[in-house]
Amino acid sequence: MTIYKAPLDDLRFALYDVLGAEKTLTALQGGEGHTRDLLDAVVEEAGKLSEALLAPFNASGDEEGCRYDKATQTVTTPKGFKEAFKAFAEGGWTGLTQAEHFGGQALPNTIGTATTEIFQAGNLSWSLYPLLSEGACHAMELHGTKEQQDTYLKPIVEGRWTGTMCLTEPQAGSDLGLLKTRAEPGDNGSYKITGTKIFISAGEHDLAENIIHLVLARLPDAPAGSRGISMFIVPKFKVNADGSLGARNAVAAGAIEHKMGIKGSATCVMNFDAAEGYLIGQPHKGLAAMFTMMNAARLGVGVQGLALSERALQNSLNYARERLQSRSLSGPKFPDKPADNLLVQPDVRRMLLTQRAIVEGSRALLLYTSLQTDIEARGADEAARKKASDVVAFLIPIAKGVVTELAQESTKEALQIYGGHGYIGENGVEQFVRDARIITLYEGTTGIQAADLLGRKILQLQGVGAKHFLEEIGAFCQSHAQDAALASLIGPLAKATKEWSELTQKLAARVMSNPEELGAAALDYLYYSGYVTLAYMWARSVAAAETSNQSAAFKQAKRDTASFYFARILPRCLMHKAAIEAGVETLPAIA
Amino acid sequence: MTIYKAPLDDLRFALYDVLGAEKTLTALQGGEGHTRDLLDAVVEEAGKLSEALLAPFNASGDEEGCRYDKATQTVTTPKGFKEAFKAFAEGGWTGLTQAEHFGGQALPNTIGTATTEIFQAGNLSWSLYPLLSEGACHAMELHGTKEQQDTYLKPIVEGRWTGTMCLTEPQAGSDLGLLKTRAEPGDNGSYKITGTKIFISAGEHDLAENIIHLVLARLPDAPAGSRGISMFIVPKFKVNADGSLGARNAVAAGAIEHKMGIKGSATCVMNFDAAEGYLIGQPHKGLAAMFTMMNAARLGVGVQGLALSERALQNSLNYARERLQSRSLSGPKFPDKPADNLLVQPDVRRMLLTQRAIVEGSRALLLYTSLQTDIEARGADEAARKKASDVVAFLIPIAKGVVTELAQESTKEALQIYGGHGYIGENGVEQFVRDARIITLYEGTTGIQAADLLGRKILQLQGVGAKHFLEEIGAFCQSHAQDAALASLIGPLAKATKEWSELTQKLAARVMSNPEELGAAALDYLYYSGYVTLAYMWARSVAAAETSNQSAAFKQAKRDTASFYFARILPRCLMHKAAIEAGVETLPAIA
Repeated sequence: MTIYKAPLDDLRFALYDVLGAEKTLTALQGGEGHTRDLLDAVVEEAGKLSEALLAPFNASGDEEGCRYDKATQTVTTPKGFKEAFKAFAEGGWTGLTQAEHFGGQALPNTIGTATTEIFQAGNLSWSLYPLLSEGACHAMELHGTKEQQDTYLKPIVEGRWTGTMCLTEPQAGSDLGLLKTRAEPGDNGSYKITGTKIFISAGEHDLAENIIHLVLARLPDAPAGSRGISMFIVPKFKVNADGSLGARNAVAAGAIEHKMGIKGSATCVMNFDAAEGYLIGQPHKGLAAMFTMMNAARLGVGVQGLALSERALQNSLNYARERLQSRSLSGPKFPDKPADNLLVQPDVRRMLLTQRAIVEGSRALLLYTSLQTDIEARGADEAARKKASDVVAFLIPIAKGVVTELAQESTKEALQIYGGHGYIGENGVEQFVRDARIITLYEGTTGIQAADLLGRKILQLQGVGAKHFLEEIGAFCQSHAQDAALASLIGPLAKATKEWSELTQKLAARVMSNPEELGAAALDYLYYSGYVTLAYMWARSVAAAETSNQSAAFKQAKRDTASFYFARILPRCLMHKAAIEAGVETLPAIA
Repeated sequence: MTIYKAPLDDLRFALYDVLGAEKTLTALQGGEGHTRDLLDAVVEEAGKLSEALLAPFNASGDEEGCRYDKATQTVTTPKGFKEAFKAFAEGGWTGLTQAEHFGGQALPNTIGTATTEIFQAGNLSWSLYPLLSEGACHAMELHGTKEQQDTYLKPIVEGRWTGTMCLTEPQAGSDLGLLKTRAEPGDNGSYKITGTKIFISAGEHDLAENIIHLVLARLPDAPAGSRGISMFIVPKFKVNADGSLGARNAVAAGAIEHKMGIKGSATCVMNFDAAEGYLIGQPHKGLAAMFTMMNAARLGVGVQGLALSERALQNSLNYARERLQSRSLSGPKFPDKPADNLLVQPDVRRMLLTQRAIVEGSRALLLYTSLQTDIEARGADEAARKKASDVVAFLIPIAKGVVTELAQESTKEALQIYGGHGYIGENGVEQFVRDARIITLYEGTTGIQAADLLGRKILQLQGVGAKHFLEEIGAFCQSHAQDAALASLIGPLAKATKEWSELTQKLAARVMSNPEELGAAALDYLYYSGYVTLAYMWARSVAAAETSNQSAAFKQAKRDTASFYFARILPRCLMHKAAIEAGVETLPAIA
């Protein structure tokens, strides 16, 4: 059995003390009502729901998994999933950040990120059902006609239906240009969609009345490759003019995958057999349309890394406190007990501080990025929106790529603290490791994030987002140059930031002369960028803590974790720099 | 489905070209017959057995797991396990390295390590049954009376019975001083053993007629803590004077654990209910006796890391060759195919070279260490044996701690190459990740290995093994200082080795003034030591390849992987050095 308690204190600290979210959010267009009182209440309610209805079914959901019935081609989700989804829908959570005219509550993405962390930490498998719906809503909001929005988007916002994104095919994963699913003209302007999609999360389940698939397919006249892909709406049940459910469409789950983790999430093979579909957006522009959802989806997966790391930390800290084994190196600390607890071991504290540095640093980064998406959407003026948009584009591959990779480390360290007990299913921590393993793979592998960061965001877009972000760090360093509380942090941060700029420029020159250098350096560049970004988040956190109303213990913990981060994590940049500079000649051909 | 082919070429290269094993082994006492012809034949046979009888049941064993029947308190192993064990016993593998007077073949440990790698790679879960027997044999060989050896050891060597090591209890894991199992005087000099042991690999199964448990327990007059522990032989079935099986003893499996991986290995809760047991070795000296088996057991777990990494590498390399996705950054490399394979991506090559550097470097290290154990046991003179013994003591925590941790990375990278397909059970690679997760935990966690290296081997034993080993590296660097083939390697190796010595000395001084510094630095010191040790193995491998009869492609691959290692892996020392130097003040108390 594992514990979970929504980390309200640190969420509030990151939101208000570090990021000044209240001030920023209430200044946005339509944000007048988004005061701290309101936002706090929302986050607290999310905590209650997650703790009561999601967290208790995390382990049982893993054990039961989803069941697929071949005869009816239906999927039964684990115990508790349906009830939780009902409560979630009734609480208005399915429309939390959706526009009011679609029935949503139009709350900021920043709050969406905070509550999503809480739901995902409660039960990652379960949280994939609403997460995929969000992506589908987003696509229909941006690209659908009013009629499509009224027909398909609103019921999802209301929590009556759910959505999917059908991209991957057996031969087309990272390279969607290879996809083969066909769309042929049908009746009344509809299309007949034929093909097989794999890895479709929430492709089939028993949580909602209808499922709306957003499907990438090729029109008959489509050019080859990624420029010949269109997007279609394919409902599980066709929808009558009055919005009621009509006939079953020719789309069905052919199987579900047996996976390493997230076993409560139905990962489906979806067969489209001349299923009726409706073009959404422009012909042949489907991939671009899909990519408009990508930032939100990737940020959401980054949040999954944070969520799993948070829950793993809570449990391993608890275990380290309670497990009595051996004595402190400097003599017994609990002489009246048969042994000291694990916290007296410096190496156990190293593992806990590593987790804490990852968790709280990632939280600040993800909320920071989310706040930028809110400014991007509803900032006061065009210049502010453009700047935020650039920063978001730059930070997304870091927020997804680095946070999900650090979640592998974080959950691994949590398990390690348990010793052999961590390997036993009923202790629960090994599930976090298995669940976490998917997040560096889906929504673009870490390699894809790295290529996006270096290839697209830095080189193709000329690093405009990076420039803004680095300037912000520079300004922060300057304004805190004399701040005694940050004396040991500002120097290394400024140095790392400068080195980051220099590395970037050198790399750009190298890639110009040989495009292979991009692939040779991208992964290490991603990590390098991530560690400097987190250093900035940690420096900001210490600065914010000092002037906050937080308790002395809270402030001390922030200082301690930041010192640990700068002394023991940030130096990883040294090895990434060496790897970046090693160049493509150290990656010769393999037969 | 995964593939596995015993890596005979690289095993032979490491044995003969790098380590000169034939020359060393035939010069040992009783080693005259251990020629390359003989050893090669043994390793090849191991390959055949593993490929035919073990590897095909690896995935099915994971899926089936062991079944525990509560009514009879018996365990059924997965399909294929029994047949494989029968063939293994009939082939004489259970006694491969055991003394001839016990019915063994007295082959060198070096060959035992080579064949163990092959069996473990075929099926890690299965391989735990003979591995635990080996440990039990070793203990009885060193500490048993002749009668005990004749009665209990010989049938294990013959493969009719198996053995276990019963150490852990719920409240006593890393800290065995806390164990509570009691031994009270019984009839005819026997003892009644009462208590519960957990995590007992092969504690109960259907592979053999009888199971001999070596159990740690306390005599009535035992002092508290680790100096009051004795070792007992407790057979599942008592043994009659003629060696036939007698009555069932009062020891039984109360449950088996449901684990993250190694599901084909029965991990049992063993209940001893006044079971008849026989003291082995001296009273109260059980822990010391158990520790005499520790080197072999820890080396064996290091080999598990190598084995899993090797199999994961074979499969991910195969996948990268066959999977067609996207195009090379510098234009199509397979223009007649719908896409290029993954090998054209520099980042995929980075992941493959990382694995190869880990696999082949670890293999050289583990065989090197094994060769030292053979010299320790049967070296020509006392001085040679003592020196080898010191080097073994020093290298064991590195061979266990670092190789098992690198296996986490190696199997993770293998899975990552598969993208989302790696997360699907039927593709098999995720099992390697799950199976690998146990090896940093059992036979002493990585933290325990680190404390053993720095606390015991370096500080307590004054680094005598380290001194020999560093001198050897120094001599190697000197003798290859003018070697053009090693021009880019010797400088960094010599520098890293020098820095390692300096770090060690500084650390020793720091620990003298504050014992907590030991715990604060040990883990990073372990990694640092491991990376320099592997750098030495890689430099030796390149030197050996150059003067060998290997093919040009083989030599080139060694050079490439070594260059990769020095450019992109060895620089990890930079961050470990920073962490070591950060000191205990960066690991403050956690409440």
